[in-house]
Amino acid sequence: MKHLTKAIAIIAITCMSFITLQKKTKVVFFGDSITQQGAGKNGYIPKMDSLIKLQGLGENYELVGAGVSGNRVYDLYLRIEEDVLAKKPDVVVIYIGINDVWHKTTTGTGTEPKKYEQFYRAIIKKLQAQNIKVIVCTPNVIGERNDVTNLQDGDLNFYSKMVRNMAQSLSLPVCDLRVAFADYLKANNPNNADKGILTVDGVHLTSAGNLLVASEMWKTIYAATK
Amino acid sequence: MKHLTKAIAIIAITCMSFITLQKKTKVVFFGDSITQQGAGKNGYIPKMDSLIKLQGLGENYELVGAGVSGNRVYDLYLRIEEDVLAKKPDVVVIYIGINDVWHKTTTGTGTEPKKYEQFYRAIIKKLQAQNIKVIVCTPNVIGERNDVTNLQDGDLNFYSKMVRNMAQSLSLPVCDLRVAFADYLKANNPNNADKGILTVDGVHLTSAGNLLVASEMWKTIYAATK
Amino acid sequence: MKHLTKAIAIIAITCMSFITLQKKTKVVFFGDSITQQGAGKNGYIPKMDSLIKLQGLGENYELVGAGVSGNRVYDLYLRIEEDVLAKKPDVVVIYIGINDVWHKTTTGTGTEPKKYEQFYRAIIKKLQAQNIKVIVCTPNVIGERNDVTNLQDGDLNFYSKMVRNMAQSLSLPVCDLRVAFADYLKANNPNNADKGILTVDGVHLTSAGNLLVASEMWKTIYAATK
Amino acid sequence: MKHLTKAIAIIAITCMSFITLQKKTKVVFFGDSITQQGAGKNGYIPKMDSLIKLQGLGENYELVGAGVSGNRVYDLYLRIEEDVLAKKPDVVVIYIGINDVWHKTTTGTGTEPKKYEQFYRAIIKKLQAQNIKVIVCTPNVIGERNDVTNLQDGDLNFYSKMVRNMAQSLSLPVCDLRVAFADYLKANNPNNADKGILTVDGVHLTSAGNLLVASEMWKTIYAATK
Repeated sequence: MKHLTKAIAIIAITCMSFITLQKKTKVVFFGDSITQQGAGKNGYIPKMDSLIKLQGLGENYELVGAGVSGNRVYDLYLRIEEDVLAKKPDVVVIYIGINDVWHKTTTGTGTEPKKYEQFYRAIIKKLQAQNIKVIVCTPNVIGERNDVTNLQDGDLNFYSKMVRNMAQSLSLPVCDLRVAFADYLKANNPNNADKGILTVDGVHLTSAGNLLVASEMWKTIYAATK
Repeated sequence: MKHLTKAIAIIAITCMSFITLQKKTKVVFFGDSITQQGAGKNGYIPKMDSLIKLQGLGENYELVGAGVSGNRVYDLYLRIEEDVLAKKPDVVVIYIGINDVWHKTTTGTGTEPKKYEQFYRAIIKKLQAQNIKVIVCTPNVIGERNDVTNLQDGDLNFYSKMVRNMAQSLSLPVCDLRVAFADYLKANNPNNADKGILTVDGVHLTSAGNLLVASEMWKTIYAATK
Repeated sequence: MKHLTKAIAIIAITCMSFITLQKKTKVVFFGDSITQQGAGKNGYIPKMDSLIKLQGLGENYELVGAGVSGNRVYDLYLRIEEDVLAKKPDVVVIYIGINDVWHKTTTGTGTEPKKYEQFYRAIIKKLQAQNIKVIVCTPNVIGERNDVTNLQDGDLNFYSKMVRNMAQSLSLPVCDLRVAFADYLKANNPNNADKGILTVDGVHLTSAGNLLVASEMWKTIYAATK
Repeated sequence: MKHLTKAIAIIAITCMSFITLQKKTKVVFFGDSITQQGAGKNGYIPKMDSLIKLQGLGENYELVGAGVSGNRVYDLYLRIEEDVLAKKPDVVVIYIGINDVWHKTTTGTGTEPKKYEQFYRAIIKKLQAQNIKVIVCTPNVIGERNDVTNLQDGDLNFYSKMVRNMAQSLSLPVCDLRVAFADYLKANNPNNADKGILTVDGVHLTSAGNLLVASEMWKTIYAATK
């Protein structure tokens, strides 16, 4: 009887370990059209999946896209229950801000800095209330010129700074896409083109752009979850 | 004993009636700076209170302002729990849209029509889930010229139509401030001034403007609650 | 000899009269992309030419396009010498204002009302200094909805009113395209579409739109030159 | 007699020299409200006059303001004959571009880059046709933050680059106010304020701002005219 009990205990522990091993870290990417496209073929999410598998961690992570075209920060807040919380993620990567800045100069429907931060913090609060780990990203580019002559470079810098400050005050990891893109374009945009390197139109990502996002985000996710 | 019981019963019933009579209909006004100012001295809320008392219904209604300067429709959604639901109102009057339209042309931070309707409906849904009676208002004016030459007349008409359509599809009473202001200005703005009649600056209300809002809203509230 | 001289004189005078009869009224259409396209196949200028020929006046008028895509009123002023005065027209039809209004809400590069009038008057002055007859047009539409809900209906009404007032103060004929388009759309846009009737995109003209412009302008030109 | 003739000749030559010495270099400052205010008490023009006198060159230069509030580049073109050419200047300093950029984000009435350059070149051409020496300035600041987070820093950099490129292609001296202001603010804006150092409101100059403009412009003018 004693042996049998012991055997059962061993089996049980093994099974539990197995189940524990099987429990993947679920990462939801919460954003706009860049993330919506990022979930598609050649998008940053499948590319990140490949990076993870290369690192031999394919069994440990489940990546889920939650991007909707045209979203500003307040749209994320409106759909957070249904599109994020309902999926019970372990980690949420928030990548929002391009439309909040961009559409100030297209249709006059951007988002004030104060409101951007207010909604951003409200989103973080809702995620943290569910013990979800939150990673934030700075908004990368609107235009690819590398001499600070893109129309909204000043404003993107301002919103990026807000994101960094928020992250610092809340002790959250930051994936600084703005810096990563700037560094890449400094080195790889010799003709100072305003699009065509990392983006097709100044905003939406090329394959190279998706790879850069995948790589930068994965570094941050890995550091935050390993 | 019998008499005593009877007496107590009568007293109890009387008290209950009294309590019932005392139960006021609580109306919350949910909006932007116009409503924030509307709750102040000479604002539309105290003016409406006077109108109600004149009608001998002073004991029946309690009016509460919940306006915050600079608010767009999504800001209402962000603060609805704290600023409205927590107050347990019987009726909520939603009066929002001026900044959603106006700030397209000032700081580029207005609200897209689709988003305006989406958040507006989300607000109504949250209110109705608490059995709160909802009244909606059309956004009145940005500029007072009465020959359809104000910069944003077309857009205000568009958003007003959205409000009317939403109200119809959800069977909600509408307080059509846009029509009320247009009618008033048709009759009372002989020099076609762009401000100074119902507003001090094209948007924020004069005493006459506050009285017009008070009177129009009260008609709608009374019809919906009598 | 005397008879011969007389005969020659008569022939000469007849020839001169004939040449005088042959002198066509040259009309230059001065505007933006609508006029640039209007000079093309199916544009309003060839359509007007057909209308003139139908009326049997084909020998009397020469129609010349001078439209450049993206032009605001100040662009006309910049190129008036080269593109208009150098052509020695008898009549100039100024049709400008769509971009001055429209681009306020697209790229933030519209034209202030005060500046619109200032440059418009400077153009008229330069034309009148050459004894050129000037005809002005109101800016027709940005969006075809017929219930005054197009984004910039208010502003277009305002600029149209400026054009009418200028014309009145300078005793110039007006081709009121704004009214003509509004009337047409009232009758022929039963579904309140925002494009597809007189314009392909809310601004640039369909064949029907070009015909309406041709017909309205021709009425004004004929009245001013017959 | 010979001596007398000689004496007269000497006197005559001396007088002519004197007259020649008396011929001051007339410098017209052609710009917007910054220049309009710059011509007032404590403005950059009287400050420059003081600098010139300190250098002992007070007799050599005449400084004339030609700034009009709200001007974009095309407004300069409209009023160049009356306000500049009629004054027969030797040197014209063109300082324009703030409103062309700024009003994209306030009233939607900025100026497209292409048009900015087109009108700028047309102005230069008109000045050079009169053998006037032309000096151009880069547009300095809209907001004083020194970490490239001002709303329109990217766009101002873009327009400044256009000015530098134009100047290079036309071999004109440039007064690079954008660089001068950036350098100053790097050293003298420790709290990264958005106004209050060189400007009162992010655009219009303080006494320190006027002094910096006076000093920078004078260096360029002196180098171009000595």
